[in-house]
Amino acid sequence: MKMSSLFMPTLREVPAEAVVVSHRLLLRAGMIRKLSNGLFTYLPLGLKSFRKVENIVRDEMNAVGALEFKPSVVVPGDIWRESGRWETMGPGMLRIKNRVDQELVVSPTAEEAFVALLRSEISSYKQLPLSVYQINTKYRDEIRPRYGLMRAREFTMKDAYSFHTDDKSLDDTYQDMGKAYRRIFRRVGLSVIPVRADSGAMGGTGSEEFMVESEVGDNNLILCPKCGYAANDEKAACAPDPTTEGPGSAKTDSPYAAIETPKVRTIDELCAFLHTSPRAFIKTLIYKAVNVELDLAGLPGCASLERKKPENSPAYYPVAFFAVCIRGDLDVNEVKLAANLKASEVELASDADVERLTGAPVGFAGPVGFASAPVLADDSVMAMHDSVTGALKADLHFEHVEPGRDFSPWMTADVRTVVAGDRCANCGAEYYSKKGNELGHIFKLGYKYTKSMGMFYLDENGKQQMPTMGCYGIGVDRTLASIIEEHNDEDGIVWPMSVAPFHAVVVPIKYEGAMKDAADKLYSELAAAGIEVLLDDRAERPGVKFKDMDLIGIPVRIVVGDKNLPNVEVKLRKAGDAVLVPLSEAAASVAKTVREELSALSGEN
Amino acid sequence: MKMSSLFMPTLREVPAEAVVVSHRLLLRAGMIRKLSNGLFTYLPLGLKSFRKVENIVRDEMNAVGALEFKPSVVVPGDIWRESGRWETMGPGMLRIKNRVDQELVVSPTAEEAFVALLRSEISSYKQLPLSVYQINTKYRDEIRPRYGLMRAREFTMKDAYSFHTDDKSLDDTYQDMGKAYRRIFRRVGLSVIPVRADSGAMGGTGSEEFMVESEVGDNNLILCPKCGYAANDEKAACAPDPTTEGPGSAKTDSPYAAIETPKVRTIDELCAFLHTSPRAFIKTLIYKAVNVELDLAGLPGCASLERKKPENSPAYYPVAFFAVCIRGDLDVNEVKLAANLKASEVELASDADVERLTGAPVGFAGPVGFASAPVLADDSVMAMHDSVTGALKADLHFEHVEPGRDFSPWMTADVRTVVAGDRCANCGAEYYSKKGNELGHIFKLGYKYTKSMGMFYLDENGKQQMPTMGCYGIGVDRTLASIIEEHNDEDGIVWPMSVAPFHAVVVPIKYEGAMKDAADKLYSELAAAGIEVLLDDRAERPGVKFKDMDLIGIPVRIVVGDKNLPNVEVKLRKAGDAVLVPLSEAAASVAKTVREELSALSGEN
Repeated sequence: MKMSSLFMPTLREVPAEAVVVSHRLLLRAGMIRKLSNGLFTYLPLGLKSFRKVENIVRDEMNAVGALEFKPSVVVPGDIWRESGRWETMGPGMLRIKNRVDQELVVSPTAEEAFVALLRSEISSYKQLPLSVYQINTKYRDEIRPRYGLMRAREFTMKDAYSFHTDDKSLDDTYQDMGKAYRRIFRRVGLSVIPVRADSGAMGGTGSEEFMVESEVGDNNLILCPKCGYAANDEKAACAPDPTTEGPGSAKTDSPYAAIETPKVRTIDELCAFLHTSPRAFIKTLIYKAVNVELDLAGLPGCASLERKKPENSPAYYPVAFFAVCIRGDLDVNEVKLAANLKASEVELASDADVERLTGAPVGFAGPVGFASAPVLADDSVMAMHDSVTGALKADLHFEHVEPGRDFSPWMTADVRTVVAGDRCANCGAEYYSKKGNELGHIFKLGYKYTKSMGMFYLDENGKQQMPTMGCYGIGVDRTLASIIEEHNDEDGIVWPMSVAPFHAVVVPIKYEGAMKDAADKLYSELAAAGIEVLLDDRAERPGVKFKDMDLIGIPVRIVVGDKNLPNVEVKLRKAGDAVLVPLSEAAASVAKTVREELSALSGEN
Repeated sequence: MKMSSLFMPTLREVPAEAVVVSHRLLLRAGMIRKLSNGLFTYLPLGLKSFRKVENIVRDEMNAVGALEFKPSVVVPGDIWRESGRWETMGPGMLRIKNRVDQELVVSPTAEEAFVALLRSEISSYKQLPLSVYQINTKYRDEIRPRYGLMRAREFTMKDAYSFHTDDKSLDDTYQDMGKAYRRIFRRVGLSVIPVRADSGAMGGTGSEEFMVESEVGDNNLILCPKCGYAANDEKAACAPDPTTEGPGSAKTDSPYAAIETPKVRTIDELCAFLHTSPRAFIKTLIYKAVNVELDLAGLPGCASLERKKPENSPAYYPVAFFAVCIRGDLDVNEVKLAANLKASEVELASDADVERLTGAPVGFAGPVGFASAPVLADDSVMAMHDSVTGALKADLHFEHVEPGRDFSPWMTADVRTVVAGDRCANCGAEYYSKKGNELGHIFKLGYKYTKSMGMFYLDENGKQQMPTMGCYGIGVDRTLASIIEEHNDEDGIVWPMSVAPFHAVVVPIKYEGAMKDAADKLYSELAAAGIEVLLDDRAERPGVKFKDMDLIGIPVRIVVGDKNLPNVEVKLRKAGDAVLVPLSEAAASVAKTVREELSALSGEN
């Protein structure tokens, strides 16, 4: 393509709101423009790279036997009511009433649409397993869209769904998808960190997230430098680290005893006052949990809780309170806590609730003698000795408390926030942490949707069964932005060959005379060799052309100048050293370079 | 691809609501399924044909130098307020308020989105002309979605927009687009009727619609068998046909005179009573027009009309009334009438308004002495003589009325409904008519959007100017459905090669032994030759396989049976005679047939 027939409005300045490098460079290179908050238009150059990412994703989905469908983007609300997500998706799901008062949704994801379709089509085990996907427009009404394509409201997602007769089959497809995702990210030139993840609002039992490192990432990743363990901090575990010396390290035979702690407010003050350490203090927090799917009958403080009938709701208890104990130097991870309580959400109880339940002002909660709510102890607590706790009275603590002897929690679980410096659960090495953005996610959904939406098939014995499901997503726009985040320098984008809008650009110093002839020849030869080539035929100064081509990041630049003819200057965007090549050999040489780069990315050599 | 890894749920029965053949066959062939009223999912086979249509459209857009963009599907309401269409688009436009109370629209079309984008990017005449397009999801909230893909709510449209410094440049692009459209329809195997069309709610001055004949078409097409004139009846003109004999044919010297017509209610009764013909009767209808953009100052009955200030609204008069006269045997075409009145809509006035304005019961309106509203006369009226009109009093008519002598209309115009049997405006031959559906539409929009939304560039002299615009749409889904409407028989779809989901299918009578070996060999050879080939490896009876392959309409079928080996049987879906071909030559022969069909459609030979 010739530059004169391309629309590529490059910019020197970008809006202040563009704080991440991919957003800045996509704007500067004339690849996208903002239409409204979180709504973007791809310009021709940006669309070329977008389509390349899209096609690599499509290619790898086809390679694992997934079949492409195209559901509508706008879908009826009733299928969301069937699955129960009309209620749980919250205000991020864009809901509409149309002219005939039908409830509609601009799809944020498509479990419902595919189950609604396939429950009418799948009748026999012979039709399973089946993997389906789409690459289509999605909308999530982000309350703070920002970082350009990294967190837009409208975006394109590849979402795949698989249906199986048994767990083994689901696991096979799940593994295939995991491998396909690794190939996709390698082919687009991205370094991703596959991490085990909490499966969050999607529900389900097994999942893996594909993360890229990002300063502005939404996720805290916990990483082991030795064995490669990687997890979202919402799911990370760590090796036990019992206190081995100093206060709290040794079992005591003294009975627990009350001690007056007047005007002591913080853990630090308490530790100073009692000459102990936070590692010897049992912190007790009162949590309010919502939609708790556990049977709490007979537990302390639960007799008067409102309990919904199971047939009316997946939640047994709309609201329940819990006392959560953890070692004084650690923090509770609320996602892990909610998962253990099978609650849709947890939050610290209000001061009034704390006072009502503990019978004391805030700051004196403790597990000893506590009977107003079930007590959950983090694993760290059960390894403590001779510890200090609140005594459920103002200005009073207990010391010499022995967990197990002086109180027995209803549940012990891993609810601590794992941080850099904690020890790897696998190998014991010291974790480090990074911020990351999620590009892809694979899940084992199980029966969540096939059960709620009534999808059945007949097995070998003619018996009705529900299929088990997996789902597999990749954000196309976010992947594109992440490629730029990883591949750029001070001059602009440095596209990997596989996703560059053009493989090569021919830049005549002036598009006239012998230089024009040579540039035209090279352009035709490259095009004939199947190379996607741009010809910068603009009447601009060479410096402007070079700057623009560096900015838009075309991998190979061929400069045609009369000083060098009959040689031309070939320079790789990512490397830097220009080499002179005879014009007659340039097309073949560039074509070879392009092919080598492409096959290196696709792992073919 | 092998049938065993395709998902193609063919049906014997379809829902009763599927009344048109394309809807029935798309469902039966397992190409689409309905998710909700007017919302469809493409299944893998349907998507293959859809993408082929899409790519032919894309190819021809690129060939005329249009650049592909990808705006968001959900767009902000404020750009629709700027253009004024927030008000005029009506309830068919899907409007949403999101969580932060922002007004959003699921795009029904994209003039606003592209003008909003490009007004910030285009600053100089040097950047013009510019043609841009997208192929993207659209939504129109059809009140009665039906006929499957023919009239869905969500659909995919290719919409292109062009921007120009002058009319000549706009006309050049308009002509190029017209040619591209003709190529697109030829390549997908469709017979279209290009017709001049009323430009309707889009506004603008020149337009052409590309129609396909359809029993359930929305449009009445007026066609000349001799010269090829074709027009939507909303815009069709016809040759004048003055009455040359009998009543009303000769000028009268008698002055007009009142005649009592008691208990005469219909035109037929009146003609019998007066021994005259409907061709001698001037029918006078009172119309109410909305948003009239004409200056009516000083006209009869207009002094008291509410008149909006031009700067507040494009409409000078929110409501105005007109008396419309036409020859008694003809009907008023309200679209033509509205165009002449520059009104957004016209409708017959209520009985109360008729009585108020004519001073008589309904049925006695007439132009003679009428002074309560401006009088518009159809061209037919001015060629009448010695005619009869209502006399603005109950049970009274005038006879011997001479138009021009006894009344002078404010405006004369062509507002008649042209019908089959009228004479061609070009050549005088007798028109016939057909019902049609619109697949594509090209418009000269002029300054409508660049003016309302403030888009400017600097011309050669540094003076600020507005660009003039064109817009060009094609419905991709509707085109796909129309191809099936044109190409089917009692057994199913008969795909043109260019849009078939597969070019050829290999059907082994049984997929085992020598037949399996031969089928596999053929399948590999065809695939290696670049032919999109399906292998029916199912364990079904041959009859079931043949029926399915006829239903899904694959152009070339190759049957591998042990009776014929080492020959195979090649049969074209559209023709019918099977021929035996040696297995060793079959792939080359089929590949040749496929290539010939493809190049015949693309007009390359």
